[in-house]
Amino acid sequence: MCDILNTINCPQDLKELPRERFQDLAAEIREFLIQSVSQTGGHLAPNLGIVELTLALHRVYDSPRDKIVWDVGHQCYVHKLITGRRDRFGTLRQTGGISGFPKRDESEHDSFGAGHGSTSISAALGMAVARDRQGGSNRVIAVIGDGAMTGGLAMEGLNQAGHIGTDLTVVLNDNGMSISPNVGGVARSLHRLRYDRGYRRAKEHLKGLVTQYDPLGVGSTVLEVLGRVKDGARHLVLPGTLFEAFGLDYIGPVDGHDIEELLRTFELVHDLPGPILVHVHTEKGKGYRPAESNAERFHGVQPFDVETGETAPPSGPGRPYTEIFAEALIELAAEDERIVAITAAMGPGTGLMGFAEAYPDRFFDVGMAEQHAVTFAAGLAAAGLRPVVAIYSTFLQRAYDEVIHDVCLQGLPVTFCLDRAGIVGADGPTHHGVYDLSYMRHFPELVLMAPSDDLEMRDMLMTALCHDGPAAIRYPRSASPGVPIDRPMQVLPIGSARVAREGRDCTLLSIGGLLQEALGAAEILGKQEIQAEVIDARFAKPLDLNTIRESVLKTGVLVTVEENALQGGFGSGVLEMLESAHVSKLVAHRLGLPDIFVEHGDTASLRRRFGLDAASIADVALAHLPGRL
Amino acid sequence: MCDILNTINCPQDLKELPRERFQDLAAEIREFLIQSVSQTGGHLAPNLGIVELTLALHRVYDSPRDKIVWDVGHQCYVHKLITGRRDRFGTLRQTGGISGFPKRDESEHDSFGAGHGSTSISAALGMAVARDRQGGSNRVIAVIGDGAMTGGLAMEGLNQAGHIGTDLTVVLNDNGMSISPNVGGVARSLHRLRYDRGYRRAKEHLKGLVTQYDPLGVGSTVLEVLGRVKDGARHLVLPGTLFEAFGLDYIGPVDGHDIEELLRTFELVHDLPGPILVHVHTEKGKGYRPAESNAERFHGVQPFDVETGETAPPSGPGRPYTEIFAEALIELAAEDERIVAITAAMGPGTGLMGFAEAYPDRFFDVGMAEQHAVTFAAGLAAAGLRPVVAIYSTFLQRAYDEVIHDVCLQGLPVTFCLDRAGIVGADGPTHHGVYDLSYMRHFPELVLMAPSDDLEMRDMLMTALCHDGPAAIRYPRSASPGVPIDRPMQVLPIGSARVAREGRDCTLLSIGGLLQEALGAAEILGKQEIQAEVIDARFAKPLDLNTIRESVLKTGVLVTVEENALQGGFGSGVLEMLESAHVSKLVAHRLGLPDIFVEHGDTASLRRRFGLDAASIADVALAHLPGRL
Repeated sequence: MCDILNTINCPQDLKELPRERFQDLAAEIREFLIQSVSQTGGHLAPNLGIVELTLALHRVYDSPRDKIVWDVGHQCYVHKLITGRRDRFGTLRQTGGISGFPKRDESEHDSFGAGHGSTSISAALGMAVARDRQGGSNRVIAVIGDGAMTGGLAMEGLNQAGHIGTDLTVVLNDNGMSISPNVGGVARSLHRLRYDRGYRRAKEHLKGLVTQYDPLGVGSTVLEVLGRVKDGARHLVLPGTLFEAFGLDYIGPVDGHDIEELLRTFELVHDLPGPILVHVHTEKGKGYRPAESNAERFHGVQPFDVETGETAPPSGPGRPYTEIFAEALIELAAEDERIVAITAAMGPGTGLMGFAEAYPDRFFDVGMAEQHAVTFAAGLAAAGLRPVVAIYSTFLQRAYDEVIHDVCLQGLPVTFCLDRAGIVGADGPTHHGVYDLSYMRHFPELVLMAPSDDLEMRDMLMTALCHDGPAAIRYPRSASPGVPIDRPMQVLPIGSARVAREGRDCTLLSIGGLLQEALGAAEILGKQEIQAEVIDARFAKPLDLNTIRESVLKTGVLVTVEENALQGGFGSGVLEMLESAHVSKLVAHRLGLPDIFVEHGDTASLRRRFGLDAASIADVALAHLPGRL
Repeated sequence: MCDILNTINCPQDLKELPRERFQDLAAEIREFLIQSVSQTGGHLAPNLGIVELTLALHRVYDSPRDKIVWDVGHQCYVHKLITGRRDRFGTLRQTGGISGFPKRDESEHDSFGAGHGSTSISAALGMAVARDRQGGSNRVIAVIGDGAMTGGLAMEGLNQAGHIGTDLTVVLNDNGMSISPNVGGVARSLHRLRYDRGYRRAKEHLKGLVTQYDPLGVGSTVLEVLGRVKDGARHLVLPGTLFEAFGLDYIGPVDGHDIEELLRTFELVHDLPGPILVHVHTEKGKGYRPAESNAERFHGVQPFDVETGETAPPSGPGRPYTEIFAEALIELAAEDERIVAITAAMGPGTGLMGFAEAYPDRFFDVGMAEQHAVTFAAGLAAAGLRPVVAIYSTFLQRAYDEVIHDVCLQGLPVTFCLDRAGIVGADGPTHHGVYDLSYMRHFPELVLMAPSDDLEMRDMLMTALCHDGPAAIRYPRSASPGVPIDRPMQVLPIGSARVAREGRDCTLLSIGGLLQEALGAAEILGKQEIQAEVIDARFAKPLDLNTIRESVLKTGVLVTVEENALQGGFGSGVLEMLESAHVSKLVAHRLGLPDIFVEHGDTASLRRRFGLDAASIADVALAHLPGRL
């Protein structure tokens, strides 16, 4: 079934393939991708949409000499297939297998790693400038989706690309949606009609004003304005306007599934000088009906049944924290009109689509623009609303400065909900949310929480929304323990820990979902007659000095447990607190993630590897008991 | 001399002032600003440029009901003068005095705090959306410079403003330069001529290709392209193109020093619906000849002589670290062609103008775009160059994600030079560089250094550039101790501390410029027969376990000293390291900045206040000696 694909072991093989066979090769690749990703899970829809585009690029350009830079990177599967990784494709995203993203140490064809959005233009421009300095003649091509194009970093890159003017090709892979349907002026610039309502209204209004005012007194300005508005409306019909304004030449739109048109376009563009934007229209999920009809669901999927498109229901008693958060938010919003919700192109992923349906005018998807999401929320809060910003832990890194500078410094009541905190599994190092406790812990004014079960998730959301200042809740991708929701939400006292199990021999101090592992460790220790006290910290900031001090003064042995980097993380904060409180007579050990980038793989195995499962926690506690060290 | 100004105690007073007196008022304000800032120091040139614009806004709009959001905020002096803070203006930027930036808790007219760039559109949009939800009718106006407009956050904000379409006015204060002369496509879109060379060349080239290729085969695409390019060139002459592409109505350009034109424009704009961009041309430094002729130098100045424009030379033996860095970089670049330097609109501030002169084609000012600066550098490094990214500590916060995701994760050899690390003094909480040790310490792969004197600054730069991976050097605004440069640069062993003074009673472990204070503390202690060992850590990451352990095992008392937040900072890292190494028998105390936002004020007083001067360090050491705690 993969007769042609099986002959493609490197891009060179594509150059020798007759042009008329590319369409068949594309079909084979789609079939291969559907079968393979149905087994491994992965980003299916984006890759089905980019088959012809990838083939055309590798036919016309000469990788690895020419540099192809994939933005975000989850659309690199076709690229991986035809650059020597077909045989390993079944290991995609599995422990020890190939990554779901481009990775410099995986192949010389992966010119630049990715995972977060909007980086490709900047990186490609760097490569182009380096080429110029080194007297090289290779081409550099950034491939970026219309979603990632709404990120400020991409626009900063376009801005300098236009300024420098060196040879650089930016391919805009426009599927009319990023992960969620796309929003914003960039999208409008690509799609809107000649005279939309807003423009017509503004023009009419302006005309009225001219008549109203003395036309001779203000005439020159107003007439100038009128001329501009009229011109302006005309400009908007040309999709390239935005890019031309940045100083790039615009070419397109090109049908991204017409291999001939793509080949001819890139053969032409290959020799053009200066920065060029090639606008390619593609269809996400192309060629697999379930993905075509629901591209969002097939953006990233668990293993699925190829016939039906169905994925297996999650097993176990718990539910995703995402879902618990989403339900609680809808409940709270019913009581408080000031509550609004913000996502950065991650409505479904953050669970907000139910909220969007219930309160369409209180829901804001700002596009892939985390920085703006945060400062926009700060503006909303400054004017009296109670914004909830739901962003994956790893993506909120993009807005580090805005959280501290625009929200915390002004003490504004913005609630940050950091989904996918901790190890995320198959997406790997670019997506693990393992730095938030470290980077938020030094934000003055911020209250920082992590729930250990369903009820705490709900209570913490209420606590955050009742707190008159900034608050953040971080919760994992993993399921909750499935504690029944049998009581109303309640406000937790800020900075209060909870003794989850009493003991006298050692203290296991846990933050977030790993509480279940800490309790499991206590069970194991109990069988050896060791009574571990287990504390659910609940707050990473402020810490509960009294509860923690009392426990460690009693037990003398402290093990902290977190799914976060050990550097500057929760355990580090506990050490700082105990030092400041002059509690020095104790044996302490911090469990968490070491100072390396954690690779992709199965979450449970990764936890075991880093000693974050019940058995490992028990072992560590044992080793630190008096007389054992 | 301030007859009119003295009658303006709130914006309402402006509304009662006859229009014909505004020009005189503007002159009075300029005179007042020049005199006052010559005493206090401050951002003179930006404020001289925005006198008429500020007056016009406050005449037409109704603050605080209408919200004026100042971007960056260093141009808010005129706003402060006419919103009730004239009498306190002599305390500007002084300890306990008014801030040099808008501050919500300083006045109800300061609708949103600022300090970093490009935040105003997002914040203003938030306020506009909140107004809509609350059924309000107030106006919201963001005032943003052309420099800040090149920041990705601003473009993200424009994007959603165009999408939402609510009433919002963005005033583009275009002085043709930000802090350094402006760069990029945005600047081009504002300034370039009808047919520039690049466009003409591209068009000619394209024409050539059409003839060369079979015109029938590729015709439709190429002709379409040609049409677009021709159109494109025409669009570029219209300065509003970029903003119209984002979906805003464009009005302007308006002469920013013609008060009548400004008043008429805003009277018109006041009632226009939808998002509108008003383009105002201003001259930075307007009305004070020394500032007009050297706006960069008068962007932010120390107290100066009004007649000559001269500032007092810095006193003391030392030199700015900025200068030492800059010289060393030029020297190293002479030896290594791969070295290139990048700034984000801060060429003079980071000391890079000498480098730019020596190596114009190896110097890149990317505009106020820290994110792009970092990812661009990652691209340069991936292609074999050795980029040095010089950014103030506080501004690099904007690129937190790019440093970890694009540089560290790929282990790329990029050198970050973080100027203005620690307390910066008069600029206050938005500008103190007191989080970098906390936020960089958890970046895997990164080597993190801080020099304590002139020679170390040079050695560290060489060390970073010889290291085959990411490295960062943080250094303060304060002067160096002025150690003579009497030997060539040398590469430091990665992670090696240096015992600066031997002792046996306690260990003072310092990072960076505070070493001098630690040595001073040791002097004080010596007079009391207490022999303090002083260690210059040099590396915040990796830490030198052996040197530190050996010292604390000897002394039993450890005091760490850093000009950084205590949360997750250097001292926190030392605690972590000692815990991991099972060194538990010691008394430790960390000195640094507490978990609050440090206000503006004189650096020396702030250091004393937070116990970072020699006397305080000595006191703390004394208090922790055995038998004293």
